[in-house]
Amino acid sequence: MKGSGLQDLQNARDERALPIDQVGVSGLRVPIVVLDRQRGRQETVAQITLSVNLPHHFKGTHMSRFIEVLNRHRGEVTMNTVPAILADLKACLAAESAMVEVAFPYFLEREAPVSKAKALMDYECRFVGEANGRRDDFILGVAVPVTSVCPCSKAISDYGAHNQRGRLEIQVRCRKRRSGGRDLVWIEELIEIAEASASAPVFAMLKRSDERHVTMQAYDHPVFVEDMVRNAAGALKNDPRISWFRILAVNQESIHNHNAFARLEWKRPGPGKGRRSDR
Amino acid sequence: MKGSGLQDLQNARDERALPIDQVGVSGLRVPIVVLDRQRGRQETVAQITLSVNLPHHFKGTHMSRFIEVLNRHRGEVTMNTVPAILADLKACLAAESAMVEVAFPYFLEREAPVSKAKALMDYECRFVGEANGRRDDFILGVAVPVTSVCPCSKAISDYGAHNQRGRLEIQVRCRKRRSGGRDLVWIEELIEIAEASASAPVFAMLKRSDERHVTMQAYDHPVFVEDMVRNAAGALKNDPRISWFRILAVNQESIHNHNAFARLEWKRPGPGKGRRSDR
Amino acid sequence: MKGSGLQDLQNARDERALPIDQVGVSGLRVPIVVLDRQRGRQETVAQITLSVNLPHHFKGTHMSRFIEVLNRHRGEVTMNTVPAILADLKACLAAESAMVEVAFPYFLEREAPVSKAKALMDYECRFVGEANGRRDDFILGVAVPVTSVCPCSKAISDYGAHNQRGRLEIQVRCRKRRSGGRDLVWIEELIEIAEASASAPVFAMLKRSDERHVTMQAYDHPVFVEDMVRNAAGALKNDPRISWFRILAVNQESIHNHNAFARLEWKRPGPGKGRRSDR
Amino acid sequence: MKGSGLQDLQNARDERALPIDQVGVSGLRVPIVVLDRQRGRQETVAQITLSVNLPHHFKGTHMSRFIEVLNRHRGEVTMNTVPAILADLKACLAAESAMVEVAFPYFLEREAPVSKAKALMDYECRFVGEANGRRDDFILGVAVPVTSVCPCSKAISDYGAHNQRGRLEIQVRCRKRRSGGRDLVWIEELIEIAEASASAPVFAMLKRSDERHVTMQAYDHPVFVEDMVRNAAGALKNDPRISWFRILAVNQESIHNHNAFARLEWKRPGPGKGRRSDR
Repeated sequence: MKGSGLQDLQNARDERALPIDQVGVSGLRVPIVVLDRQRGRQETVAQITLSVNLPHHFKGTHMSRFIEVLNRHRGEVTMNTVPAILADLKACLAAESAMVEVAFPYFLEREAPVSKAKALMDYECRFVGEANGRRDDFILGVAVPVTSVCPCSKAISDYGAHNQRGRLEIQVRCRKRRSGGRDLVWIEELIEIAEASASAPVFAMLKRSDERHVTMQAYDHPVFVEDMVRNAAGALKNDPRISWFRILAVNQESIHNHNAFARLEWKRPGPGKGRRSDR
Repeated sequence: MKGSGLQDLQNARDERALPIDQVGVSGLRVPIVVLDRQRGRQETVAQITLSVNLPHHFKGTHMSRFIEVLNRHRGEVTMNTVPAILADLKACLAAESAMVEVAFPYFLEREAPVSKAKALMDYECRFVGEANGRRDDFILGVAVPVTSVCPCSKAISDYGAHNQRGRLEIQVRCRKRRSGGRDLVWIEELIEIAEASASAPVFAMLKRSDERHVTMQAYDHPVFVEDMVRNAAGALKNDPRISWFRILAVNQESIHNHNAFARLEWKRPGPGKGRRSDR
Repeated sequence: MKGSGLQDLQNARDERALPIDQVGVSGLRVPIVVLDRQRGRQETVAQITLSVNLPHHFKGTHMSRFIEVLNRHRGEVTMNTVPAILADLKACLAAESAMVEVAFPYFLEREAPVSKAKALMDYECRFVGEANGRRDDFILGVAVPVTSVCPCSKAISDYGAHNQRGRLEIQVRCRKRRSGGRDLVWIEELIEIAEASASAPVFAMLKRSDERHVTMQAYDHPVFVEDMVRNAAGALKNDPRISWFRILAVNQESIHNHNAFARLEWKRPGPGKGRRSDR
Repeated sequence: MKGSGLQDLQNARDERALPIDQVGVSGLRVPIVVLDRQRGRQETVAQITLSVNLPHHFKGTHMSRFIEVLNRHRGEVTMNTVPAILADLKACLAAESAMVEVAFPYFLEREAPVSKAKALMDYECRFVGEANGRRDDFILGVAVPVTSVCPCSKAISDYGAHNQRGRLEIQVRCRKRRSGGRDLVWIEELIEIAEASASAPVFAMLKRSDERHVTMQAYDHPVFVEDMVRNAAGALKNDPRISWFRILAVNQESIHNHNAFARLEWKRPGPGKGRRSDR
């Protein structure tokens, strides 16, 4: 019977001399705990992708081990715990490199600008962690919904100005510390930068007095998608903790059925030749 | 060998005494031809769902026959040809009822309001056809992107007004003719009604003079989602060709991360008792 | 200045004589707590739609009040609390009817069949609650991923059989109690029915011994989509707590680029004439 | 009046010294014509993203010009015409670099293996073209649905084997010719490589004799996602027209609610130092 002493096909040799960059599982949905600046911890639900490299001489990887590793760590998936998850993946799967991608909604209680009424806002966040012999990486990303008023429409019209919901997505890589680990940037800080780069923030609840306030605030601060990425870039460059960033601004144009977008990537110039291991 | 004279399991009797309302295939993507008021015909790409009922005594339906029927008719999928497709489905699958759902982008060349520059706009359209012993139905649906300016924001603010891309989805059922067939309503007519119900239409290309025009036009015609469905409902009720409609307006609120919506369904009062077969 | 004593446009009279079936907000994402048969309570993240009707004489509804109501109740969104949320919506928005729709992932720790290794599985769940003068409704829905082996492919092939990930979606309405409230059906019970209706359950983690087990279990229990809906329907009809159900089975056919589906709706015959208020 | 001699804000100087990598429009849906090996030309519907770089001294780009350029070229969007579209974008927007991304379904009539019944299959395709002073790039991508039978499940089970719909996505860059232009690889050729790398192809229509055939063909050729990317990589490396490729295989695991995937990227070693302009 095949069943007794089940064959381990994945461990068989592969003769095609083709190493594979990434092998793993995607679309895992699990509850996780992340860091929360105000409350310490926040429970949310994540979509997770886990992968490792596969040396050319192995036929396959053992997919169930990804789930075992995730199970052991799912209590906490944060900048502080991702290195341990990556080390565990490398060890359990006999791999040289490992990668973890985590996407989750993050909730913040926000106060309306005039009424001070409180309500939760949700922000799509994302971690990407990577570890191998040569490099060790961690990227934090946040997508922030905002209001944008078009400067051109305002300038050329006698009254009014088209505006729309926009989305400002910021990804950052933080400086490594000599003592080990990386500088910490809070999700909340990136949200603040994104909102300050747009015409006005977006809220879950606005009473009439608030709606009046944000309508005029937005009209007083018109921005193109180009302005949004530049405003955010200026703020991020001035933060010494941040060594690299990518910004994407997308406007759901209210006068079109398509979107306008701008994208800007930047890397802090290094002291000497940029070694990849410095990421 | 099993292969010689392949068993037809689907034709086996089923003893559970459970008829099934719909059995079929979904997610089929095929090129189709639809009716175009200006040009006669338009080639586009559709997502199609085909289904029939399954009487309680059959174990299964023959899924490949749906594809055969679609192949025979794919040259034309219009209000005029859907009855023949439905009849073919009923015959080939030995069914009492059949249903076809078709979703496709429809393209119209639109002229910008001032510069008269031309560009194609895309509209999501949808047919739902149904036939069985008791009824024979056809619904036409169009989703039209529009601009909406918030009347409240305009009224309470000293200047400006939040606005956003909205979407007005109209579905109609047309009157059956005594002579057979149904009154024809063009996709283009529903687009006109939707656009007239909002603050301004949406265009693929606007030069600066056009952007100035639509900005002020929209500011001069603020509407809530409630107004959009009522405006469209008023126009549709006045059209004797239309016996039933459903309208859904959704605003991608530029000051929130959620949407506002309104929905309204209406049926023309019949001369006598509403027989379902009259649909 | 417009700002002093802000105008309440929504309260203005509307003269179009068109009542609106549903007005509200959609796409709200918030953390919620739901009932968990094992652990009492489970924290998860939901997408929520809230709406009320709008009498013909009002111009608009007050969208911010939906968020206020949700804020007051977000600690718990369960079959037990939905009636209070609906009552609150009707009161705060001066409406005759209210509706709440909640979609969320629900997590269950499942044991692999042989190794007994444990891992979380996620299931998409859904509540729809409705209240007005005439009726009071609550529907519970669960979408359960399953394995399905094709009986035809197995019957006609010398070896092997195509199989695929399927999805069995069950929605139920529970019997109202004379004492008030409704019979309770657990999400876990619907998951059990769905899995028993397919070829085999789906797990997050399977060791090799488990994979062997489910491969052969599935091959031993081939089902068409038609069988899946009938199997589930049989089990649901035998449960006196359930007064109505709708079942949708969808197979991501492994030999096609489209899906096969079956749908079945059923209502328990009433003792007398079916009054809508009895739902 | 603002309207006379409308201000051109986008042409204003920007003092933030921040060049922007990409500015443009996304989500444009238009009918296009692509090359078809059998029939010469194929009409389909595309989603298009157009962008240019923005030098640091300009405040904004002129979004309407993207639509004008697209309008001029929409008759044909192929490997042969993309260079002209890119040149036009650079000229009209006074930019140094331009990029065009085009995603579209491509249809092929396929014959079932035994019955020879014909039906259309759809494949998601993608072009990415880029041009600037330093480089000139064109990537062709195709995503091919396939059947995959799990070798492990087959090896350890007494009968049966779990299988599922998989998706093999291949992107290639073709060699530049000394005479200008690039070697041409047909979409059809990549589909053939993808299907030969899996357990069996996927068809729109299979009669019972065909279903028997593909069931046994797939069972006879079990593959892991790792095998699929290696099989495809082997074939692509042997084709001298191809200078770079990236392969992604994803299995919609029939025994899990998550996917398994593998990714492999490869670049043909150059004769000397790899100049970017040689891409």
